This record gives sequence, structure tokens and C-alpha cells, in this order.
Amino acid sequence: MKIMTEKLDTQFPLVASIHSPADVKRLTLPELNTLAEEIRQLMLLKESKQGGHFGPNFGMVEAIIALHYVFNSPDDRLIFDVSHQTYPHKILTGRAYAWLDPARYNDVTGYSAPSESVHDHFVIGHTSTSVSLASGMAKARDAMGGHENVIAIIGDGSLSGGEAFEGLDFVGEMDSNFIAVINDNQMSIAENHGGLYKSLAQLRATNGNSPDNYFRALGLDYIYVADGNDIASLIDAFQRVKDSTHPVAVHINTLKGKGYQPAVEHKEEWHYTTPFDIPTGHMLNESPYENWQDLTATYLLRRMKEDPTVLTITAGTPAALGFSEDLRHEAGRQFIDVGIAEEHAVAMASGMARRGAKPVFGVFSTFVQRTYDQLQQDLCINASPATIITVWGSPFTMNDVTHACLYDIALLGNIPGLVYLAPTSWEEYEAMLSWSIDQKDHPVAVRMPVGKVLHDPNFTPDDYSRLNRYKVVHRGSKIAIIGLGNMLATALETAQLLKEHGIDASVINPRYITGLDTELLDDLKRDHHTVVTLEDGILNGGFGEKIARYYGPTDVHVRCYGLRKEFRDRFDPSALLSEAHLTPPLILNDLLH
Amino acid sequence: MKIMTEKLDTQFPLVASIHSPADVKRLTLPELNTLAEEIRQLMLLKESKQGGHFGPNFGMVEAIIALHYVFNSPDDRLIFDVSHQTYPHKILTGRAYAWLDPARYNDVTGYSAPSESVHDHFVIGHTSTSVSLASGMAKARDAMGGHENVIAIIGDGSLSGGEAFEGLDFVGEMDSNFIAVINDNQMSIAENHGGLYKSLAQLRATNGNSPDNYFRALGLDYIYVADGNDIASLIDAFQRVKDSTHPVAVHINTLKGKGYQPAVEHKEEWHYTTPFDIPTGHMLNESPYENWQDLTATYLLRRMKEDPTVLTITAGTPAALGFSEDLRHEAGRQFIDVGIAEEHAVAMASGMARRGAKPVFGVFSTFVQRTYDQLQQDLCINASPATIITVWGSPFTMNDVTHACLYDIALLGNIPGLVYLAPTSWEEYEAMLSWSIDQKDHPVAVRMPVGKVLHDPNFTPDDYSRLNRYKVVHRGSKIAIIGLGNMLATALETAQLLKEHGIDASVINPRYITGLDTELLDDLKRDHHTVVTLEDGILNGGFGEKIARYYGPTDVHVRCYGLRKEFRDRFDPSALLSEAHLTPPLILNDLLH
Repeated sequence: MKIMTEKLDTQFPLVASIHSPADVKRLTLPELNTLAEEIRQLMLLKESKQGGHFGPNFGMVEAIIALHYVFNSPDDRLIFDVSHQTYPHKILTGRAYAWLDPARYNDVTGYSAPSESVHDHFVIGHTSTSVSLASGMAKARDAMGGHENVIAIIGDGSLSGGEAFEGLDFVGEMDSNFIAVINDNQMSIAENHGGLYKSLAQLRATNGNSPDNYFRALGLDYIYVADGNDIASLIDAFQRVKDSTHPVAVHINTLKGKGYQPAVEHKEEWHYTTPFDIPTGHMLNESPYENWQDLTATYLLRRMKEDPTVLTITAGTPAALGFSEDLRHEAGRQFIDVGIAEEHAVAMASGMARRGAKPVFGVFSTFVQRTYDQLQQDLCINASPATIITVWGSPFTMNDVTHACLYDIALLGNIPGLVYLAPTSWEEYEAMLSWSIDQKDHPVAVRMPVGKVLHDPNFTPDDYSRLNRYKVVHRGSKIAIIGLGNMLATALETAQLLKEHGIDASVINPRYITGLDTELLDDLKRDHHTVVTLEDGILNGGFGEKIARYYGPTDVHVRCYGLRKEFRDRFDPSALLSEAHLTPPLILNDLLH
Repeated sequence: MKIMTEKLDTQFPLVASIHSPADVKRLTLPELNTLAEEIRQLMLLKESKQGGHFGPNFGMVEAIIALHYVFNSPDDRLIFDVSHQTYPHKILTGRAYAWLDPARYNDVTGYSAPSESVHDHFVIGHTSTSVSLASGMAKARDAMGGHENVIAIIGDGSLSGGEAFEGLDFVGEMDSNFIAVINDNQMSIAENHGGLYKSLAQLRATNGNSPDNYFRALGLDYIYVADGNDIASLIDAFQRVKDSTHPVAVHINTLKGKGYQPAVEHKEEWHYTTPFDIPTGHMLNESPYENWQDLTATYLLRRMKEDPTVLTITAGTPAALGFSEDLRHEAGRQFIDVGIAEEHAVAMASGMARRGAKPVFGVFSTFVQRTYDQLQQDLCINASPATIITVWGSPFTMNDVTHACLYDIALLGNIPGLVYLAPTSWEEYEAMLSWSIDQKDHPVAVRMPVGKVLHDPNFTPDDYSRLNRYKVVHRGSKIAIIGLGNMLATALETAQLLKEHGIDASVINPRYITGLDTELLDDLKRDHHTVVTLEDGILNGGFGEKIARYYGPTDVHVRCYGLRKEFRDRFDPSALLSEAHLTPPLILNDLLH
């Protein structure tokens, strides 16, 4: 179906009439309700074609309309947590074109973006940051003599992250304007976890009157809105707190996915969607291939059934390890979702390991960086034998600047005591996991491969406790190519190209990100003049630099290939690799000239 | 004064009679009170000679006695937050020798240490980790069919850290034994900050009956002990919660520094002490020299007075930037202590900068790693022009394994968008700070130098916005030595030694940790065969490796000097440098052979 721009403008006349929040303020309540309906239909259309965050946006349509009706953005600052619920905000702040005109679907990002609009104040993508960011704006306002409202909009799921607590605790002591809108849709990506959610439920059950009130305990004033999808109630509540001279939490009870039945019924599946068929809700591009997540879940389920001390942990993203709702049910108490609380997950895993259990924590590459201190202090200083699986480390996964999975090698690779492994096939991955889960000497992280599942029929497991032994895949001479994890395939292809130029290059699977096989590296010196390193993360602080340092005092030349240290939003991963010369023909060219 | 072992055993007969917690359980209440008195006197003696954590230990004597009286350590697990309050615990668990025998004063560490005793379960030094670590032990206990009590002991100050919230929120959902002892002494290192402390004060004022109860809001049961230094009350409370089958918080109100009047009156100064005179409380080794902290505070105070938008931030450690209580008072609302909440501090600084203010966040090197995700996401992706001062980065500051200041270069040096500067003299440091505070383009971190304050009378400031320009201190040939920050002095000394061997080495102050001066590095290739890099952090992921990578494909040899990636507790910094060959004679020797 091709949709024409003109047609959409006519179909959605109220949206088409909104050029800035000032236009929202002119509408009557019935018109605001119609506007909400138009926004939902428009988002439904676009997401059915393009995918995107579904539930978070559909639940917040009315609240965002009411915020713009009551407050004066951009003078009043609206700061959205995670900012995956900002589609309605974008539609109301001059960016409706990216929904009304299919040719411009890609003209806005999926997150808050100051480069797009003065109504966006930060690039935001990770969870639990809004209150702290907004509090800084409020404190600066006070120092500079400003008087605007500062409003953080944060979901109940985001409250489980420590940074959100730190922010609320801080603003609870402020003596000037600060408004926290708590969007309580009773969900994280999956269901919520944490004792806090019991007391939020009590607040909802008592129309906000339950005594156990987290926000009051942190020093904020508190009001409750029972129907957070009712524009009139929301306007009333926001008007009550506007220009407040003290911190206040407005707790609104919303329906995630509201307006589209499949999304309301299956909130987890519809947190984020790929393109789908609107009448049935069926996804259009289900992959028929086996994938790393499903294989990992199957493997871990088997281990958990065999051994009650194997405990699988997620921090609010069970999909990272392939644990759908069914599989979580099957795993029972051995699958533990701690909420969006990566710091806690790592420290808890350390505690479990010290008590003799076998914890496995799965975490996306972009989120493992939320817990550096716990990895170093709670886990590695204690040499606790926990297993961490880092997921999606590669430019070919998420490409939003806030979600790029390019930093885990540089971050985890330099923590003392950690063994960080980069498998290259399903068999090697499984063997490394098996070793890690059962051994008692090291904290171990395993970098789940990315892309098509590769099988190695000739694989034989090694004893990985003999640390830092690289695997020579092919012993040649002159040039050696060390291909880390996903990059072993590139190393093999490059060697193939070199062969055509008469060079029989060595190819090495280093396996260990965290250490050097000095014996092998010394041996290579005998008959190699150049060593090439390939990795699919940033070069700076990464794996290749350690090889370069080792060979620094010698005559061996080292060429490190990896990605540049820079922020790029919505990058094309293939272009990124080409810029870095991280393709077989480009490496070949570098080596021959 | 030389104290003999025999004499102390006689002076402290009850302590001398305790060989394990079983011996505590045999005592009568009057004897337990006498034991508390003996422990205090013994700690006073040792700390007057050696220094150590004072207030935290003196406030917890009774509680630790009561814990060992009621619970059965090591089967029941006592997990101490920060573990700077574990001296009484060590004294009661077979390690009294390190207090009774001055010759053995150094035989125990200042923190929890599993290598010393089965009664210590983790190496702990950073804040807010105990609940998460302990919860892991509790979950593993449940999975393995154990029945012991798991008890986290956490101070009110530690509650402001996000990890502690994440942990409490998690245990609030547990359906088995978990006990959190909240040691409320109304202090962090300095005074507490955060809205939570208002509700804790209300709980104290109402004997635990105030409705705003943080612990209940997170799903824990709650009991209050009004006098947390009364052994009988504590025993009663702990007996009530022992073997509890659900999570419970025991809130005890203690007096920090109890038993020594100077420590009670000046709680901040006596959080940690250096050797002192017992009758007067006067410190014995006050340094007469100017120091980086005082100079920094003086500079920032001046800037704040001139400009109301300059805002200085600390996360519970105002001493990092030299802000004593007097100076904080002088700075007024422009000095902001957010509590022990580094994540919030960085995100808030980003918000301040985006709103036009000039935030400066000072943080110890060992704690800056608690906020990696916020540095990358909240600050650097947003290019917010905030200033971060990292303090004590060097092996010559803290040498406990948990507090080693050796990781900031590898951590901050690889974050895109960040400008991380390493000044080498007071004048350069001040010029960099001035530039950073006033510029609007970059997030900037400045690594405060360590040791004797060096002055450079010939210094002229540069425009640091021309990024990554290294400074050639001396242009020679053959060998170039790049000395980062504190290591410039070592570079100069090494060059001096080389001169005696007929080599006129170049010496370079790179200034920028986060970038390469490729123009200069290319120029050096003309007439240098070897480039040496010196840094006082770990080599892995550090500054030198970037130079090695750059020269990797060339004939220039690179020798990187820095510290090994390893955990070492209570290391001798000079020995560490010698092992790393990071001294002028050893570098000379390497270069000549």
C-alpha cells in the first residue's frame, strides 16, 4: 500500500493543523480527544510499515497532549525518560511530517533529539536518567534567575534503576519548582520487578491514599490521577502543579498500548514492534532462521533443569537471552528478573556465586556499561565465578547513538581478573558457556556472537581454564590475521584474498579478549613481518591496541582494524565498517600498498 | 610510647578472651557492655598511632556485639556496606591480635577481607553494595536449600547510592529471609543530602511511626531501635527478626564516633583519622605544604563569587576538591552535595550545562568509575560543557585494592566526545580549568595532579580548544619520551640520564589523554627510532596503547610504561612502579639494552 502525503493530511486534519504546541492550546476538550485519536491512528499506520516503540507511545498520547496544553514548551522543559514515548511529543512540536508524509518517515529519530527541535533538550536512550538531567536544568534555572517549570516524565519501569532513585532523592530536597510525572503503566519492557511495585499497586488501589508512598518518603509532594488516559483529568492535575515552588510527583495510571487491542493484550511483545499487519497484528518479517537468543535459552533451560543452582538473571530485558514469557514460566524461580537494575544484577550474581550457586546474567552490550563499578568491585575483586553473557556486541545490531553496541570490548577488556571470551561458532559458544558455568575460579563474560548462527562441525572443546591461549586456525607466514569473535570470518576471507596474491597468511582466533598469548605472539615473530587485528568495537582501549603494545618494541608491524571512537546516530553498519577499512578487500589493499 | 603485647592483653581482658563469636554469646549483659568499652579503648589506642576509619567503627561497637550475640556467624552471613565499620567485627572474629599486639597492627586490612577470616564474605570498599551482594547469597541459599540468616548492614549515608536502592527494591519482593540493618548515624562522610533524610529524621522523631517510610514503600517490614548503642535493645530487636521468613529492615539510631568527644563533636573530620594525640584530639602529622585540594577550592571559590552560574558539585566527598565545612558555607547554594550519588551528579551536571550554567564536579579517581554510563550517555552524547575534576589518580594516593586510583585513564580515555586533560603544574592545571569552565563545546575532565604542587614560572596558557596538541618540552632526536601528567617529571629525569649516555631525547607533555597529536607523532618519525610513553595508570586500555597503535604500521619502536592490570591490596606504590620499570634508571636500562 502506497500512501500519499496529501491523503494523510486530509485524513488527519487536526494533526495537520498543529505546527507547534501553541496550536494545541487553542483546541477544545472534544477536539483534544479527537486529536488523541488521530495521533493513535497515524502512529499505527507508520509503525505497521516501519516498526518502532509501540506500547510506550500509545499509552502516553493523552498525557503528552495535556502536558503541551498546560505547560509552555520549550520554555517549560519536558524531559522524557528513555524518550521512547516521544512520538506524540514530536507530532505536536512541528514534526508531524514524519508521520503524515511516508516519504519522510525517516526524517526523525526514535528518541529525543535536540538537533531536530528546540522542544527536545537531550539525546536520551538509556533508562532512568530523566530526573537527574531535569534536576540539573532546575538547579541552573535557580542559579540564573529563571522561572520556568521543569518536568521529568518517567515510567514506572524506569523507577527500578538506581539513577532514577538518586535523582528523586536529590529533588526531594529542592526548594524550588520540580515536577516528576510518573507514568505508571504497570510494565517495564516485560513485567515489573521489585518491592516498589507492590506499593505502587497499593497507591492505584487506594486512589493514591495508601500510606506506603515512595515519593513522599523521598520528600516530594504527591498527587494521583486515576485515569492517566483522560485528558481532562490530566489537564486538571498539571494545572494544579504548574509553577509549584517545591518538588511534586504526579502519579498517572495509564494503559500501555491503549487503542490497539493486540498491544494491550500482549504488552511485552508490543513494547517495540517490527512491521505488522494491522487487522491481525501479525508480524510481517518473522525470521525462519535459528538465532543465538533461542539457542541460548534452550541451552540454559536444560542446564537449569539439570541443576537447581544454575540461576539465570536479567535486568528487565529477558529477550536478551531469548526468555519469552513461556520460557520464563518454564524456568520458574531459577529465572530472575531484577527490573532495570544492572548494578544490582551484577552484585547479586557475585553474591550468588560466593554462596555456591551458578549465576548467569545476560545483558545487552549497550547496557553492560551501566554496571562498570559493580563488575570491577563486587564481582572481579572478589573473583566470584559468575557468568555474564554480553549480547548484540556488533555494529549490526542497534544503530541509535544511545544504543550502539561498540563499547563492551574496551570496557570489559580492561578489568583485572575478568575473563572475557569471544566465541566464533555455536559449538565454541556453548563450550565456553559450559566451562564458565561450572568453573569456580574466575568471573567470566562471554560475548554472544551476532548474525547468522555459524556451526563448526570439527569443533572440539578446550580447557578454557588455561587462560589466554589463542587458537591457530591456519599457520602460514609473513602476515598473521587475528580475528576477534565475529571478525574471524573477515580474517578468513582476507586470508583467502591474500592467497590469490601469493601470501599464505596465518589466521588466528584469539578467543580471549582479556589477555595476550605471548608464547604464540613471540612465535609469530619468527616468520611474520605484519600482524593484523580485527575487532567489531571501538579501537580505542580495545583488543588490537594490546597487540600493538606488545609488539611495540619489536620490528613486527601491527595494523589494528576496528571502529572509530565517535558518536554516530542511526549509522549504516556497512558504511561504518568501510570507513574503518574493516572489510577483506580494503584490508587487502592496505596490506598490498 | 611502646606498648607491649602482654600489657594490652591484661588491660583488655574481655577482648583477649574472645577467640570467636561463640565467646561473645557466653557473656552476660554487663560483660557485653564492658566488652564494648574495651573495644572502644583498644580502637582508640591503635587509631591514635595508625589512623583509620574512626566514626563508623566507634558508632557500631554495640550493634556488632549484638549481631554476634544473636546470629551465628559465619553460617549466618553478615555483609557490611563499605566495610569501614568492621574493626569491632574483626576484633570479635579471631583477629583481636591486630589491636592487642602493636607489632601486628598491619596484619589485617581496613576492610572486609575473606582472605583473613571465614566471617568475611566479600572484599568491599565502595559504597551501597551490601544489600545486592547479600541478596545474592540469600537467593543462592534458597536455591541450594539453606536456612541461614543473611544480614546486610548499611549506613544511612550509603542509602543515597543507586545500587543500594536497586538492592532494597529487589529484596522487597523476596519471600524468604533477608535482614537489612540500617545504621542511621545521621551522617555520610559529611552531612547527608537527599529528600530521604527528611523522612528518616521523621522516623527517628516518631520512634519509627512516621507514615513516610522508605523501607515499607519498597516492600520490607520495618522495626525501629531508638538507641542503637544500647546492647539490650539491639539484642531484643535482632532476636525478633532472626529467622524471619520475609525481608525486614531494622532501623537503628546510632551515634557516630561515640565514646570519644572530639569525634562526636566533629563527625566529618573524624570519619577517617590520621595519627593523633588522644587527650587533645590534635593530629600529629599536619602537612605544612600547599596542596592541590586547597588550591582548587580557593580557585573555585573565587570563580563562584565572580559568577553565580559556576556551580561546584560533590557526591558525598567534599574533601576531594578541598571544600571543608567553612568553605562550603562560604560557597552557599553554589556548592551542591548530592550525597553518595555519582551517577546523579554527572547527569545533573549535564542538565546544568545544557541550561547555561557552569558545573564543576569533583570526584576521586576510584569513584568516577561508578558513573561510566552517565558520562557516556547523559554527558558526552549530549556534548554538555560540564567540567569534571578527577582527584588522586595515581598509585601514590589510596592503596587498598578497592580504592586504587589506577583506572580513570583507561576508563575516561575511551569515551567519545570527552576531552580528558592531564596537567603537569599548578599553572597548567589552573589554565585548563579556566578554559574548561568557560568553554561551551565539550565535556571536559581534568586530572588533578598528585603530590607536591609543582610550579612552572614560564608557563603561558594555550587555547585548549585546539584539541589534541601535545606540547614539546624539549626537541631532541632518536628517542622521544611522552610523559602523561604526573609522569612528565619522570620523563624529564629519564631524558637527563639519557643525556649522560649521549642521547638528546625529546620530551613531550601530551596534555590530552583522549586524542593523538598525529602531526607531531608523524614529525617525530623523521628522526626518532623509539617513542616511550609513561602513564601512572594501568597500561591496558590506557594512553600509551593508542600511541603504539598509531605507530604500529611504521618502523618506529614504541615502549609503553604503565601499571599492570591486576588487583593488588595495600600495595607499596614505589614497588609497583619498580615492577613496571616506571622509574628513570629502569627505563634507561631498557632503552640501552
